[in-house]
Amino acid sequence: MGTYIAVDIGGTRIRVAVYPETSIEPVQQKRIPTRGSNGTALDRLQDLIAELWPENDEVFSIGVAAPGPLNPKAGILYNAPNIPGWVNLPLRQVLQDRFEVPVALGNDANMAALGEARFGAGVGHHDLIYITISTGIGGGVILDDRLVLGANGLAGELGHVTIVEDGPVCGCGKRGHLEALASGTAIARYTIKQLEAGRPSSLKQVGPTVTAKDVALAAAGGDELAVEAMKRAGTFMGVALANYLHIFNPTMIILGGGVSRCGPVYWEPMRASMEANVISPEYLVGLEIKIAALGDNAGLLGTLELARMLHAGQAIRMQQAERQAVDDI
Amino acid sequence: MGTYIAVDIGGTRIRVAVYPETSIEPVQQKRIPTRGSNGTALDRLQDLIAELWPENDEVFSIGVAAPGPLNPKAGILYNAPNIPGWVNLPLRQVLQDRFEVPVALGNDANMAALGEARFGAGVGHHDLIYITISTGIGGGVILDDRLVLGANGLAGELGHVTIVEDGPVCGCGKRGHLEALASGTAIARYTIKQLEAGRPSSLKQVGPTVTAKDVALAAAGGDELAVEAMKRAGTFMGVALANYLHIFNPTMIILGGGVSRCGPVYWEPMRASMEANVISPEYLVGLEIKIAALGDNAGLLGTLELARMLHAGQAIRMQQAERQAVDDI
Repeated sequence: MGTYIAVDIGGTRIRVAVYPETSIEPVQQKRIPTRGSNGTALDRLQDLIAELWPENDEVFSIGVAAPGPLNPKAGILYNAPNIPGWVNLPLRQVLQDRFEVPVALGNDANMAALGEARFGAGVGHHDLIYITISTGIGGGVILDDRLVLGANGLAGELGHVTIVEDGPVCGCGKRGHLEALASGTAIARYTIKQLEAGRPSSLKQVGPTVTAKDVALAAAGGDELAVEAMKRAGTFMGVALANYLHIFNPTMIILGGGVSRCGPVYWEPMRASMEANVISPEYLVGLEIKIAALGDNAGLLGTLELARMLHAGQAIRMQQAERQAVDDI
Repeated sequence: MGTYIAVDIGGTRIRVAVYPETSIEPVQQKRIPTRGSNGTALDRLQDLIAELWPENDEVFSIGVAAPGPLNPKAGILYNAPNIPGWVNLPLRQVLQDRFEVPVALGNDANMAALGEARFGAGVGHHDLIYITISTGIGGGVILDDRLVLGANGLAGELGHVTIVEDGPVCGCGKRGHLEALASGTAIARYTIKQLEAGRPSSLKQVGPTVTAKDVALAAAGGDELAVEAMKRAGTFMGVALANYLHIFNPTMIILGGGVSRCGPVYWEPMRASMEANVISPEYLVGLEIKIAALGDNAGLLGTLELARMLHAGQAIRMQQAERQAVDDI
């Protein structure tokens, strides 16, 4: 039996799973903390892959999701923010040298988009965007069934677009980006600022450690400030969604991450704002907006798909080479 | 000899050109006003195609560029703003019925993008964006050598994205879009508003009929208000370009339209703003920004390419069908 190995590297944990040729049910999987006392993250990752390596089955390829910025075409991680020493790391080459099978690399939000498109909320759609809204905002775009990578694989940074010129500072250091207006961090920050300004709210007792989850819960309970904070963020997300409809004209928007699960307090203003900002009702024809279906497994399943595509592409190239060889005779 | 017919329909004129199989030099071409006394625009268009129809050569296909909004997949023009009666017009079907060859339809900005990508400033680039800046702002995106259409062919509206929440009103009726901030109309409107507020300027004598061209000329001559108006527009365009780098990661940005030819007074603030707003220098590696090379012919050459792709696609499908027929025996 042929198998694929999927790897999902996060700031806090590394997951590795072994999948059979034609199923998305892993035959083996394990997770470990990214940082630990036994060796570097790179050692630990390689040890885990070796530990799960199937004894009697062939491994066709390995797919790896890692936190960006990275270049999937060159197979290089530029800078993994939470993993010490991972700067300009040629991860693909390292793993290919060690395991002697083809390796493909993708950024985590792109891989989650691919996973949701093939196996999750996006099944049946050919043009879709995926946006994950948690501490930050990441994204991935599928057009004509293909993941949009751009020239160096840096495309799909859907959280880093200016919506409010000179708006609040973003995680990236720039101002007024979608991430600075509609992420969990943005929701918490706005609420804390309003509390500091003396606004009455049930969140007063929580104080400066208020999280987006606290705000969402308070909003569900009717707290006026919390409702306003969620509405503000949802409204900005709706503006961005209208922009993305004009840019990509998808039939599906998939929202993932913690904030996407906050319910109507975020979704209703988001939908209203998207519909108010769209330039033609044609963009809404047949459009679905769904919550991500695969949860934490989206990235892992995206890298499974990436590993399969890599193997299929190599199989096609081998067939072509064989045909060429026959033609040459 | 096989030929292709390319049609470019504008609000003021219709152009038709006949191209040989392997050249971008037309063997025949003619332009007529879109509106006239002899028949409707649709009659006049069909008469012109019939007039130029080659007597002794086969026509493989016809490509048509028309002002949006339109659905290239369905071959329908929803609403051509400057052509009376062209509402929900099934133009592809009309032309196919009349001329009995395959017809493909594309929106004018997308076709100009395709023309520039294949024959103009974009030759050699696989991932590029094209933005035309004149009265309005239109766009087109090429990723992996393919024109981005989206589910219903409505993608690539790069002028209709919110940059300034609650900003100035756009041609589409929404607020704060790029088109409302960085187009010729936006430049003129900002200048007129400042003149009305009593700002000193050499443009005072021109008054409320000031155009973007007047402003660009005055700016080149050092007029302070004019320089500021051009800088403001260029700065907003730079913000949008940074957004598009994050979204598409192209290696080439092509700028067309009158405003793109305003020189350093627009380009310098645009570049500075783009570079200041990009989230990582990786997006600038190998990036070129060029002025469109084909001028008025971009749309016509884009539809030539569209016609060729249509014919090539049909040839491939016929080959596949023949192979299948052989396999079936």
